[in-house]
Amino acid sequence: MNHLNYIDFFGFLAALLTTIAFLPQLYKTWQTKSADDVSLVMLILFIIGLLCWIIYGLKINSIPILVANIITFIFNFSILVLKISYRKNK
Amino acid sequence: MNHLNYIDFFGFLAALLTTIAFLPQLYKTWQTKSADDVSLVMLILFIIGLLCWIIYGLKINSIPILVANIITFIFNFSILVLKISYRKNK
Repeated sequence: MNHLNYIDFFGFLAALLTTIAFLPQLYKTWQTKSADDVSLVMLILFIIGLLCWIIYGLKINSIPILVANIITFIFNFSILVLKISYRKNK
Repeated sequence: MNHLNYIDFFGFLAALLTTIAFLPQLYKTWQTKSADDVSLVMLILFIIGLLCWIIYGLKINSIPILVANIITFIFNFSILVLKISYRKNK
């Protein structure tokens, strides 16, 4: 039980960091109303990849992988929507 | 064995997509010599998070998590180096 908790700690720390990492990007994009330097192809491939991680997390019953990728998906989808909407306004 | 291979397929597909996703970003940053819209805080938090995923992947013996995060680390570290170097040149 303690061994499992120790492993989960790194999983949750990893999940926390790679999830909250996209909040500063979302805030910056919202503030500057610009995401020209952010690659559209990257966002699309990354979002499809996150969906695959969610399926993988379900299959191996990994809560850290599930939680991390669902929230990361929401943030990146928001960045994608902002990027497209700001581009249309130009 | 077949069951394991089926699960690993999603893991490897997820790994492939969330890894190659950063190649277009690296290429775009290299071509435009600009990454002003890419958040520095995001890159730093994401890179530290990737290191934690690598530790987690080792602990749960997940090859897809390990491979994905090591390559993603290399790409994002390169984007960070380019961003800092282009900012200094301005």
